[in-house]
Amino acid sequence: MERIGFIGTGVMGRPMAANLLRAGYPLSIVARDSAKAASLLALGASSYASAEELARVSDVIILMLPDTKAVEQVLFGSRGIAQGVKEGSIVVDMSTISAAETVKFSSRLEAMKCDLLDAPVSGGESGAEAGTLGIMVGGPQRAFDACSRIFSTMGKTIVYAGPSGCGQKTKLVNQLVGATNLLGAVEGIRLARAAGLNLETTLKVVTSGAASSWMWTNLGAKILQEDFAPGFSMRLQYKDVSLLKDMTVELGGDYPATRLVYALFEKAIELGLAQQGNQGLINLWGPDGDYSI
Amino acid sequence: MERIGFIGTGVMGRPMAANLLRAGYPLSIVARDSAKAASLLALGASSYASAEELARVSDVIILMLPDTKAVEQVLFGSRGIAQGVKEGSIVVDMSTISAAETVKFSSRLEAMKCDLLDAPVSGGESGAEAGTLGIMVGGPQRAFDACSRIFSTMGKTIVYAGPSGCGQKTKLVNQLVGATNLLGAVEGIRLARAAGLNLETTLKVVTSGAASSWMWTNLGAKILQEDFAPGFSMRLQYKDVSLLKDMTVELGGDYPATRLVYALFEKAIELGLAQQGNQGLINLWGPDGDYSI
Repeated sequence: MERIGFIGTGVMGRPMAANLLRAGYPLSIVARDSAKAASLLALGASSYASAEELARVSDVIILMLPDTKAVEQVLFGSRGIAQGVKEGSIVVDMSTISAAETVKFSSRLEAMKCDLLDAPVSGGESGAEAGTLGIMVGGPQRAFDACSRIFSTMGKTIVYAGPSGCGQKTKLVNQLVGATNLLGAVEGIRLARAAGLNLETTLKVVTSGAASSWMWTNLGAKILQEDFAPGFSMRLQYKDVSLLKDMTVELGGDYPATRLVYALFEKAIELGLAQQGNQGLINLWGPDGDYSI
Repeated sequence: MERIGFIGTGVMGRPMAANLLRAGYPLSIVARDSAKAASLLALGASSYASAEELARVSDVIILMLPDTKAVEQVLFGSRGIAQGVKEGSIVVDMSTISAAETVKFSSRLEAMKCDLLDAPVSGGESGAEAGTLGIMVGGPQRAFDACSRIFSTMGKTIVYAGPSGCGQKTKLVNQLVGATNLLGAVEGIRLARAAGLNLETTLKVVTSGAASSWMWTNLGAKILQEDFAPGFSMRLQYKDVSLLKDMTVELGGDYPATRLVYALFEKAIELGLAQQGNQGLINLWGPDGDYSI
């Protein structure tokens, strides 16, 4: 079995790495915080002091990091992967980052005879734990094929989306559709509340028909319980719609839903809602129906 | 069993009436076009020349009509229901019309000792045929209770939403959420196309996660097949988002998704797309990503 290096063992990365360990993969991590890493070490993970050292002993290096900058740093920074990586290794970046930067990173690694796959995921913490993530993969087909068993250990719906950057682009389509559905759910609940309707009844009947969505059913229920804890934080949602906005600007053309969700999540961050779950979008409006801001 | 009068036996009304006939209800229609009515007459429906005559022999009168004006005409126009209706009859308006006008109609019928229920539906033609509609009911609770068996013959998820008008208001919340999800689906497909992604792959992976919606899965697939035949026509979609916009204006406050979907469907009507299905919203934009208009 391939020796896997896993960098970024946070809320998403930790259960993903745990599933790989349980499937029998030898797996290394960079454990700066040994308390956080304890559950993976208990499952048999090895620990290295830097990405460079981890890269020396890994055939496949998986990244699950918060943003483009963090990925660049781990790949090409001091004591980074590029300093230790072996010829023929595959780097699998499962973070959600810029598609344009991904293509540049891919070229730089190619010069070192390494393939880069961009393989962002959907399905959140629960999908990571259950091993049922959606995984959207861009990069060389041969690298995708080589990693198919690794992907199926972490995910359920795994698609090859095309050359480098296409995984990230597919993820941004996903984020556009999801963010727009979330706006629909939030505005639907606001309207029901303003009209004096019973919210439970409304949630139930809308769920039963053509207006149903994952966002309405799942985050709608959280809003009714006034549960604004992050499954997916507003901060990350804003990061993703920012990447989405950049993509539409690059492509040119009219993308009104993108424009609207970007503007609303930007306001939500300005209002200090970054640490709430993305369902906290509803807190952008006060009880009078106008912006709280 | 109650004797039912059914007015408005079009795409939705005909299969709904057929389910009532199959369940054994004596049912009358006003058959102006005997070819269209033939299937109901074959199931045992009686035919009357006017709403007035139908009302004289009915305990429950169901309306399934295109708009507020048509409902007003059938209720209070020449040879309308009000001229023939018996004391104690229940009128069940399953059309999607103005909530404010519904409340007025209800008062006028109350003066004749008749209850009016507003009971718009979701689930479309297939839901009407299968008897699995969502039904959102406003009006007197006693009338709702009296009609529960009739509703369960036509629908699956049946909710009592509150006093007169609350069924219509709930329906408009449903339409807001659905129209916003549709916009998300349309813009997601446009973005995937502009980015050169494989559309089948994108449809599949987005369906698997938190961005999934009925609109994405069902109308997304139709768009990929370039099938713009109406399940739910753009004309009716525009009528509904117009009612929705009126409701938000009446309530006051900021409803940006409503504003956006109203503006887009208005443009679609101006562009001559009224006869397409609502998935034809995507035809508002040309291949260069800008408005076709």
